[in-house]
Amino acid sequence: MINIGIIGATGYAGSEIVRILLNHSDAKIKVLASKSYAGQKYSDIFGNFRGFLDDETDTLKEPDIETLASECDVIFTATPQGYLSSVLTPAILDKTKIIDLSADYRLKDLNVYKAWYNGIERNDDSSLLEEAVYGLCEINRSSIKGARLLANPGCFTTCSILTAYPLIAEGLVDPETLIVDALSGTSGAGRGAKIPNLFSEVNESVKPYGVTTHRHTPEIEEQLGYALKNAGGDGSPILINFTPHLIPMQRGILSTEYMNLLPKTDGTYPTDDDIEAAYEKYYGAEKFVRLLGSGVFPETKFVEGANFTDIGFKVDPRTHRVVAVGALDNLVKGAAGQAVQNMNIMFGFDEADGLNFAPAFP
Amino acid sequence: MINIGIIGATGYAGSEIVRILLNHSDAKIKVLASKSYAGQKYSDIFGNFRGFLDDETDTLKEPDIETLASECDVIFTATPQGYLSSVLTPAILDKTKIIDLSADYRLKDLNVYKAWYNGIERNDDSSLLEEAVYGLCEINRSSIKGARLLANPGCFTTCSILTAYPLIAEGLVDPETLIVDALSGTSGAGRGAKIPNLFSEVNESVKPYGVTTHRHTPEIEEQLGYALKNAGGDGSPILINFTPHLIPMQRGILSTEYMNLLPKTDGTYPTDDDIEAAYEKYYGAEKFVRLLGSGVFPETKFVEGANFTDIGFKVDPRTHRVVAVGALDNLVKGAAGQAVQNMNIMFGFDEADGLNFAPAFP
Amino acid sequence: MINIGIIGATGYAGSEIVRILLNHSDAKIKVLASKSYAGQKYSDIFGNFRGFLDDETDTLKEPDIETLASECDVIFTATPQGYLSSVLTPAILDKTKIIDLSADYRLKDLNVYKAWYNGIERNDDSSLLEEAVYGLCEINRSSIKGARLLANPGCFTTCSILTAYPLIAEGLVDPETLIVDALSGTSGAGRGAKIPNLFSEVNESVKPYGVTTHRHTPEIEEQLGYALKNAGGDGSPILINFTPHLIPMQRGILSTEYMNLLPKTDGTYPTDDDIEAAYEKYYGAEKFVRLLGSGVFPETKFVEGANFTDIGFKVDPRTHRVVAVGALDNLVKGAAGQAVQNMNIMFGFDEADGLNFAPAFP
Amino acid sequence: MINIGIIGATGYAGSEIVRILLNHSDAKIKVLASKSYAGQKYSDIFGNFRGFLDDETDTLKEPDIETLASECDVIFTATPQGYLSSVLTPAILDKTKIIDLSADYRLKDLNVYKAWYNGIERNDDSSLLEEAVYGLCEINRSSIKGARLLANPGCFTTCSILTAYPLIAEGLVDPETLIVDALSGTSGAGRGAKIPNLFSEVNESVKPYGVTTHRHTPEIEEQLGYALKNAGGDGSPILINFTPHLIPMQRGILSTEYMNLLPKTDGTYPTDDDIEAAYEKYYGAEKFVRLLGSGVFPETKFVEGANFTDIGFKVDPRTHRVVAVGALDNLVKGAAGQAVQNMNIMFGFDEADGLNFAPAFP
Repeated sequence: MINIGIIGATGYAGSEIVRILLNHSDAKIKVLASKSYAGQKYSDIFGNFRGFLDDETDTLKEPDIETLASECDVIFTATPQGYLSSVLTPAILDKTKIIDLSADYRLKDLNVYKAWYNGIERNDDSSLLEEAVYGLCEINRSSIKGARLLANPGCFTTCSILTAYPLIAEGLVDPETLIVDALSGTSGAGRGAKIPNLFSEVNESVKPYGVTTHRHTPEIEEQLGYALKNAGGDGSPILINFTPHLIPMQRGILSTEYMNLLPKTDGTYPTDDDIEAAYEKYYGAEKFVRLLGSGVFPETKFVEGANFTDIGFKVDPRTHRVVAVGALDNLVKGAAGQAVQNMNIMFGFDEADGLNFAPAFP
Repeated sequence: MINIGIIGATGYAGSEIVRILLNHSDAKIKVLASKSYAGQKYSDIFGNFRGFLDDETDTLKEPDIETLASECDVIFTATPQGYLSSVLTPAILDKTKIIDLSADYRLKDLNVYKAWYNGIERNDDSSLLEEAVYGLCEINRSSIKGARLLANPGCFTTCSILTAYPLIAEGLVDPETLIVDALSGTSGAGRGAKIPNLFSEVNESVKPYGVTTHRHTPEIEEQLGYALKNAGGDGSPILINFTPHLIPMQRGILSTEYMNLLPKTDGTYPTDDDIEAAYEKYYGAEKFVRLLGSGVFPETKFVEGANFTDIGFKVDPRTHRVVAVGALDNLVKGAAGQAVQNMNIMFGFDEADGLNFAPAFP
Repeated sequence: MINIGIIGATGYAGSEIVRILLNHSDAKIKVLASKSYAGQKYSDIFGNFRGFLDDETDTLKEPDIETLASECDVIFTATPQGYLSSVLTPAILDKTKIIDLSADYRLKDLNVYKAWYNGIERNDDSSLLEEAVYGLCEINRSSIKGARLLANPGCFTTCSILTAYPLIAEGLVDPETLIVDALSGTSGAGRGAKIPNLFSEVNESVKPYGVTTHRHTPEIEEQLGYALKNAGGDGSPILINFTPHLIPMQRGILSTEYMNLLPKTDGTYPTDDDIEAAYEKYYGAEKFVRLLGSGVFPETKFVEGANFTDIGFKVDPRTHRVVAVGALDNLVKGAAGQAVQNMNIMFGFDEADGLNFAPAFP
Repeated sequence: MINIGIIGATGYAGSEIVRILLNHSDAKIKVLASKSYAGQKYSDIFGNFRGFLDDETDTLKEPDIETLASECDVIFTATPQGYLSSVLTPAILDKTKIIDLSADYRLKDLNVYKAWYNGIERNDDSSLLEEAVYGLCEINRSSIKGARLLANPGCFTTCSILTAYPLIAEGLVDPETLIVDALSGTSGAGRGAKIPNLFSEVNESVKPYGVTTHRHTPEIEEQLGYALKNAGGDGSPILINFTPHLIPMQRGILSTEYMNLLPKTDGTYPTDDDIEAAYEKYYGAEKFVRLLGSGVFPETKFVEGANFTDIGFKVDPRTHRVVAVGALDNLVKGAAGQAVQNMNIMFGFDEADGLNFAPAFP
């Protein structure tokens, strides 16, 4: 049984880690910490947890990472951009493992980080950035095993990368034609008190945001650059358009991705069967990726509350494009669920421990 | 390990039984049956279950209760009113146990049934009605233990009865003043294709329905008549007003209940402390009733997907009334969850087996 | 053509006044004022108004009531509680008329105000409170005609009072048994940035609030005390229970009201016909109250965006109660629409000018 | 004053025509017809219209187009695909004008129609197809003026075409790279009783549909082929990918469109200013197209209930693409509103008559 600390427990991702770990057979929540709510009772804020936590754990602590490092085998940081990199030291990593749900250690090139995350200063130890492992479980499992500092991928990025990865890695599509049009529920915007996220403003409306400038773009570009290496690329990032939209629902991300097919050596274009074979090759044995096949498309409701990414696709013989669609729950596979899946890999637990439940419908 | 059959598996309550039983340590789903969808693949209809069922179970069967009785230790019938009473015989009950989620065996007086469920014929064996046990777990636990035929309570009724029961049983309120004003999400209306339940008709609107005539009224009246027996009543039904409203959400029931306080022997009116003591007496040791205390009120979101009933209240010293509010998930504690809780009691399992998970938020 | 000023134009009620007045044949919006947004462009905040306002009007002004009084024939104040009473003087009323959408001048007894609106100081000229006219159009039309200072009723109160008024005034029901259970969309909570009003917190949930303490209670009690005068009362307030609930929709209020019927002189109870006759007597000639008759109940969707109150009811012969239900759009008949209707009465315009449009469905 | 008949008045588009025409100064609704509801009272079905129609008009008639042709100056047919072409004759057009909201006369090439609308037989008079005018007001105004048979464009198509038209017509983009990713509320799916459109199935979920096969695709392709003619094309259809998604809201369409920029003669790529100039050239004088400029994007809420198309865009200098986004209300500019706008053009009325109202927010 390992001890768990969560910094940023009063955000949606943080509270989702709590919900998931309550089902875990080898992990015990030890400390819930929150800057804004320290001293308050956790189950007064999240009434869903009434009756699930003992009094000590239920009392929110100050987010003192040094103290937590001594008490916990792993710390989840579900904190704002820039927090972890401002407090993390190699000494802390000697005492505990860190799974970071922010973007601090996701991008390997700090200049890219600075270009997209403008306004966030970074004067931290660059060895930590080197050490950090990008925790996209299905792709990086072997590196994750030995990680001490885990950069948990973003919600849009997990969905977008998993959906495109096999097609790019197998050389079936032209990566420079990739367009990712994505939809997100409101919990992805966090629990901050902002007028644009009020029910009265969000319901019965839809809008794009961060058009051409969304911070998840370079993360997708970097990882799919690695995918392209398989097909002969040099590993440098590809260049894409990514457009997220805010839609009136609470949970869920759906990525619709367009790619031009590359002619095969015989001059013909890849078929539905070729696409399916690529997906099977990469995900056929994966528990948390469900392949729907050609012409069947995911719905976010069918992954809600659970750790799956569902993927469907269709080749368009008129335009020689493939349209591939992925869906996941942004708080589970897009955040807390994948974080626990990473923890399971890092500690040698059953990868599905705590995550073995079906989505609820409706 | 017991074998489970579910008739009506393609309704919302039926599919929720599946979701819950997938977590159960001593129950195995053996047969999923559906009149309308027999022969189809269950996980094609409910994509949330992709990957959770073996091929045999995943294929929907004809709802032949005789066959199921031979194969299953217990059959859940999540079927329309009148179905079970038209096919059930004592011989079937010799072979299996039945947990019925319809209203067929909930009301002990068949005349009352006929008055409220007009249009539904009943020519069934009256001994079965006598044998049936009303499965409100927290109130009838001892009778449930030996039951072969279990009438699982309605969603509104579970919420409304649990909220009022202690106050009536302890003689704190005048039962004839009870007014139950209730709100329901749309899943309570079932999965039938009806224009009034379309998203376009339901969203951004609210309406009352079944005003003075809703079928859950006599069920509440009968059970609260039994509660009144504790306070000197003769066990005959009380008379109430019950008004449900359809609101634009998928899951959840909230009952707001108004009762005039009865003066105590010293002429003073019961206080918040008196009310709290009554609730503690009946539910203090119950896992699935969470008491929020005076001035704290439930929200349906905090019970969504789980088997809890949350109850809060407030005495109004101006009007000498108490306002008590209960909330539950209509598909869990109001249907499938309580059905599994009843199964656990009937088979001597841990009462919370399969139900040990926290609600999700948001 | 009269000139209009709106203070608090960037709230939901304020912007709804703008929308309605754009259709008015005799009123011209002259000044839009807002404390928080002064200097900004109005149509940048409310994109729905792009193209509808000239540049001068589209630029938000400081809310200087003295200046506005010189420029405008009438000022609408859609401002927080306590604002108007802190700035209003008799001299201002010599220059302009005021229609106040806050609660400052709704309650005639300042002690009652202080008891319910705790925390809001009031050291204002008491002659203004005396002068203020309560603007429930269908009830107080004759007093409204000469008003200089108009207290526009609250949203819950308009709905609750209109639904109960005729039954109390005609002596058909016992006013002390009145229970008002009400539902509201989120726009009633205003446009402030608060976590409980986030989409992620509100959607798929329902909760009661202000149980036994909501500020609209004394307003309903005072006005229905006047109604009771018709039936022999002394005009002092009645005493009721009022419980509002927040439901996941943007607009709309629905009040479900329970009253015990009083036996008639022949000892029998009032029938549906008696109730209908009372409603016809008070509202038969009213354009903005639509009577649905016995057994037909309102839905908020059917009044959305328009100035109607729809009312339905049903006598319950089992309990000798009547259940009456009213519905309106909280931003229109519950705020901006009634405010314009009041303006029309005050200035001798056609009472429906600017309000002559049908609700949109869906 | 002209007389109006509406066939299919009980669908959402049909009822929206009613709502709009109630504001029209020169049109009078004469006959409301509906196959399924003939004989019933219209305002019993659409409670929003209570009090707005006289008894005769409020009674739904059989949809006998011959009779309506004698009584009405124009007939709106808001009917299923294939209805109008099965009953329309040249003789009818000698008596009345027809504005058809179905797809029957939108595509000039009947083979294309048959390929996409499989299952719908067509043995109608081909001269009618030739005569029909495609009613995209801002593009085809001059042809619309003399039309007797008006094919009102689809909702997705109006939004998609208006957003891309100027950029293609001005040769700024490569039309073969156009990808249209679109989002729709549920009212676009109509008022039929279908399980996939139930609130319980739609809420809190999103899914793509008709991927690579949606029937609005060829309509967009044909019209944008005409646009390309301006830039030197031969007028034959272009080839695109179009993917609609169903999102949990009632009204609104948003199209996000991706196009590769074509280098200008000097080898540089078009800038935001170039794009803006193209939009200004085509829509600068249009009342019902609102241009938001570079970096400002539409939200469906800001067009809800009104006849606007809002368009924003951004050039991405990294990928040399432009991302353009359009939004409209599918029942207004995407159906009933544009139909009335077409009527106004056809009859020489003020083009905005009946349509002169601001969207409601929230």
